[in-house]
Amino acid sequence: MEKIKITFYPQDITVSVEKGTPLLEAVSRANITISNLCGGDGICGRCKLIVKEGDVTGEISVKLTREEVKKGFVLACMTKAVGDLVVEIPEETLAKEKRKADRDTERFRSFEEIAYKKEYEPSPLIKKIYVELDKPTIANNTADHERLSETICKKLNVGSMQMGLKIIKTLPDILRKNDFRVTATVGLRRDVAEIMNVEGGNTEDRNFMVIIDIGTTTIVAHLVDANAIKTLDAMACFNSQGIHGREVTRRMISAEKKGNEELQKLLIQDINYLITSLADSNGVGLKDITAVICAGNTAMGHFLLGLPTENIRRYPYVAATVDPPPLRAAEVGIEINPRGLLYSLPGISGWVGSDITAGILSTEIHEMDQLSLLLDIGTNGEVIVGNKDWIVACSASAGPALEGASIECGMRAEEGAIESVFIDKGEICYKTIGKTPPKGICGSGIIDLVSVLLEKKIINRSGSFIENTYDRIITEKGVKRYLLDDPVRGQKNNIIFISELDIENVVVAKAAIFSAMKILLKRLDLDFQSIDMFYIAGAFGNYLNIDSAIAIGLIPDLPREKYRFVGNTSIKGAKLTAFYDEAFNKIVQLRQAITYYDLMGAQDYVEEFQKAIFLPHTDIELFQASS
Amino acid sequence: MEKIKITFYPQDITVSVEKGTPLLEAVSRANITISNLCGGDGICGRCKLIVKEGDVTGEISVKLTREEVKKGFVLACMTKAVGDLVVEIPEETLAKEKRKADRDTERFRSFEEIAYKKEYEPSPLIKKIYVELDKPTIANNTADHERLSETICKKLNVGSMQMGLKIIKTLPDILRKNDFRVTATVGLRRDVAEIMNVEGGNTEDRNFMVIIDIGTTTIVAHLVDANAIKTLDAMACFNSQGIHGREVTRRMISAEKKGNEELQKLLIQDINYLITSLADSNGVGLKDITAVICAGNTAMGHFLLGLPTENIRRYPYVAATVDPPPLRAAEVGIEINPRGLLYSLPGISGWVGSDITAGILSTEIHEMDQLSLLLDIGTNGEVIVGNKDWIVACSASAGPALEGASIECGMRAEEGAIESVFIDKGEICYKTIGKTPPKGICGSGIIDLVSVLLEKKIINRSGSFIENTYDRIITEKGVKRYLLDDPVRGQKNNIIFISELDIENVVVAKAAIFSAMKILLKRLDLDFQSIDMFYIAGAFGNYLNIDSAIAIGLIPDLPREKYRFVGNTSIKGAKLTAFYDEAFNKIVQLRQAITYYDLMGAQDYVEEFQKAIFLPHTDIELFQASS
Repeated sequence: MEKIKITFYPQDITVSVEKGTPLLEAVSRANITISNLCGGDGICGRCKLIVKEGDVTGEISVKLTREEVKKGFVLACMTKAVGDLVVEIPEETLAKEKRKADRDTERFRSFEEIAYKKEYEPSPLIKKIYVELDKPTIANNTADHERLSETICKKLNVGSMQMGLKIIKTLPDILRKNDFRVTATVGLRRDVAEIMNVEGGNTEDRNFMVIIDIGTTTIVAHLVDANAIKTLDAMACFNSQGIHGREVTRRMISAEKKGNEELQKLLIQDINYLITSLADSNGVGLKDITAVICAGNTAMGHFLLGLPTENIRRYPYVAATVDPPPLRAAEVGIEINPRGLLYSLPGISGWVGSDITAGILSTEIHEMDQLSLLLDIGTNGEVIVGNKDWIVACSASAGPALEGASIECGMRAEEGAIESVFIDKGEICYKTIGKTPPKGICGSGIIDLVSVLLEKKIINRSGSFIENTYDRIITEKGVKRYLLDDPVRGQKNNIIFISELDIENVVVAKAAIFSAMKILLKRLDLDFQSIDMFYIAGAFGNYLNIDSAIAIGLIPDLPREKYRFVGNTSIKGAKLTAFYDEAFNKIVQLRQAITYYDLMGAQDYVEEFQKAIFLPHTDIELFQASS
Repeated sequence: MEKIKITFYPQDITVSVEKGTPLLEAVSRANITISNLCGGDGICGRCKLIVKEGDVTGEISVKLTREEVKKGFVLACMTKAVGDLVVEIPEETLAKEKRKADRDTERFRSFEEIAYKKEYEPSPLIKKIYVELDKPTIANNTADHERLSETICKKLNVGSMQMGLKIIKTLPDILRKNDFRVTATVGLRRDVAEIMNVEGGNTEDRNFMVIIDIGTTTIVAHLVDANAIKTLDAMACFNSQGIHGREVTRRMISAEKKGNEELQKLLIQDINYLITSLADSNGVGLKDITAVICAGNTAMGHFLLGLPTENIRRYPYVAATVDPPPLRAAEVGIEINPRGLLYSLPGISGWVGSDITAGILSTEIHEMDQLSLLLDIGTNGEVIVGNKDWIVACSASAGPALEGASIECGMRAEEGAIESVFIDKGEICYKTIGKTPPKGICGSGIIDLVSVLLEKKIINRSGSFIENTYDRIITEKGVKRYLLDDPVRGQKNNIIFISELDIENVVVAKAAIFSAMKILLKRLDLDFQSIDMFYIAGAFGNYLNIDSAIAIGLIPDLPREKYRFVGNTSIKGAKLTAFYDEAFNKIVQLRQAITYYDLMGAQDYVEEFQKAIFLPHTDIELFQASS
């Protein structure tokens, strides 16, 4: 073969390669590491190079702008050298050291408890199936496509099987190169099974999925091994869309003004960041990730898919869809196997999303005789009440305070977060996750802290500091702060505090949530006493002090055995659908079974909210424990 | 709005338009007609312009090469003007007068007889369904996607309905702009119904499909109105792949050497040419064509989809697929509605294609007690024998002589073709289609002519001219020709003849076909006498003289009432699947019910072929009529 020379700048490295060598390969020969997330499929568009001199050939990519093409930009993975070249590697193309992933240690603790559901038969949503096909003979010369799909149909006991043209095109070659022993990746798209991918040999043990809870404030991702029915790791990050508003409504307004492309892009970036971090840390190739399963509120689901949100925001609050079809993950820019699927779990309405259906699935409210209430505390507080016969839902806009956001020293429940605050020998004490020095306060710590400040009468029932009661109150820029450590004896550089504004955010959040529960029960002619089981879900790590939550008026004062803190039920439920076909079918049915009540505009809700913006409430009888 | 100026060259026309105007619109304002087949969806890539000066914006198109982008080429439909522009319109972009379409008059005659099958309930493969949805209220704020798909499911009585992300994205807007009155286009992809498209208002009466028989030599296309269950028009052209070999095998060899892209491209060009010609002539917009349904031999089906054919050609003759999935027609470059579907009907094996399953469906062999033989005469001759209990098939490589190709004066059965030759008062006479002066001879005329030459002893049983028997035999370049008209008295400028080589091609074709029938029956322990009904299908227009076919030894001498000439059963069967769901389901079942016999390598087939290359045969007893 003819040899050609390629010189890379600014490194000034020249390699000699065969004519027709893909640039991605040439770069690698030069020992230059460039960004390439999709493994050379032209999907991610990261491997941009600038051809300064010489001739190249290859498909033009939609990942390049017109201006870039004019300037000589190419994708390294889609372009081959046909003559001597001088190539510039742009700064942003060089692989950077990865941003350190935030391992979601707290959530990680309770993995295995989540993953195993004895009552279901393990059967992952995406199946990898190894087959040794009969080789064709003149007596049995069934076509390749039918040979494979009929075998898989028989194995899975299904009637039909879809397969895309791209797979069929490569199938004759894959089958013959691998002696008719291949592994088919089979996904479900609604009622239809589809052979998404075919690989040579037996790759059944490489079937990974990422389960994602897309919160308004926090995005949590779990990497699971669908073959072993096991969680491998979990990570989380704040939702970068926060720059366009803390609350869902602000982001929808931004999308209406400026289009939703930017919001979608930010979300996809966060998701790709979590997926690649999880994959890297666990030695899993992106190509072996066959699916991403997402739960979240309906607006987040819309941003994920680039759907218009304007009708969710406006009366009568109509979503574009609450049950989106499974898609190729690549269609929205999620970087897993190029043919991997993105499942958006079904939600209920514009204001009650798939995080809630997943929550119901996880807590099994829908299978119980007893009456349950599920409160999911996030940026929106969602309330579900029901049993096996009926389920109703409503939603309240709470703001992100209880997730540790919109609080000056707030942080997510990860290492260094103050997760509990308590009184010991008359002193206010705290405990951090990982027992390290404090970096901030997470949601459970904030609820504890407000409760303790109220108990110690450092704040009054309106949430204001009572003047001169304590030496740790300081004023900064006109706002009062309570310092958790003595400024002299305590941590010098990282003094954690809560301000009066922070407390106001907490009070508004708890009032919105409490009022939603109260009015929903009123609509049903029920009261809190009727509830047999009270589930509390949310991004608090493993810890939420029920007494503190009652003390601040977030939840009513019921017998403690009725309460159960269930953590992130959105992830738990979504994970069930990843591992068990039965669970997936159930969540699809759930959507139809739930009635949504819109309370936000209701007069009695507004009145109840006004009564609830005190600590714990104007009607103190409801909260015996704190009186 | 800000106004900008656009000057078009070489016309030197300047128009003033609003900033942001698409170039396609600006061109139209300048009253310049450019080529644009897809209606502005960036699908066809015809509307190329060169921006010489000024700024434009818009997506880059994969329809442009890198070199073109560098030179300033843009697609008019995908590009908007953002400043004053100077734009060149390349010669090839200007709309040309359309190549005259060959209207397939002969096939057209028998349309309506084909279209109506009383035993089926009309139910087109693609359905357009107009709905007036309930408008959302707070009590019924079902999401748009679920609102539409649940209504359509109910109307069609199906359990679920797929819808692509692109449709869901635009749905909120379409619904609200049209007061929730829309028409959904619903297609079937295997067992799954899919909403392919949503249009405002009631467009139920605009549901057109094109049915295509892809022959090795001839491509026939019928335009049908699926709403009215009616054929509107038909056209045909020779398959442009002919330049890569007359026979399927030659084309497969070419594809193995040079890749199959070129063969696919030629086929798609022919198909697009027929579709646009039919659409233009009948005032049907390409956007209103919702599906293309193709039948043809398996190799043609592979070329259509760009599938590798190498294993069809080699023992044990395995196709990549004989039952390809329905695809977006745009995925292979067919220009109809951008979301319209391409259905490739299911065939049986590498050498018995969907033209044969369609033929069986059309003749209903599979539903009869009596034993039928279906002979489909094309470039390959396919033979089907069976009844309601069993069906077997085989295939013989005949060459294109009986279709009027590979014959010097050969032509398709269209106006001006000699379609019959007969002896009147001792003279050899002929009749042309449309009773016009002769332009050539089509298949039925060729069979008649050879039979007549034999009867008049102008040729011997080997197909050679008997020397000096007739004054109309002339020798040109060493090859003898028989002139159909007296060179002095007849047509001066267009003398039609048949050469000794032409006759040889006919003899080889008929020998291959006859031998296949004989050996297939032998394998089944049957003979010609066992056949109750003998169907002859093929591209002969409406006319085939059974006596002539017997006389040359193409078919055996059976009682005439057993014969039925059924024309192009590939088109007829395919059209049934377009109009009747039941027919579509039946053809899918048929594939499984048919057993394929490979005869081509068999010793007894070769021996039989040797005996059959005489007129009519060495065993003259088989052909009483001609003896």
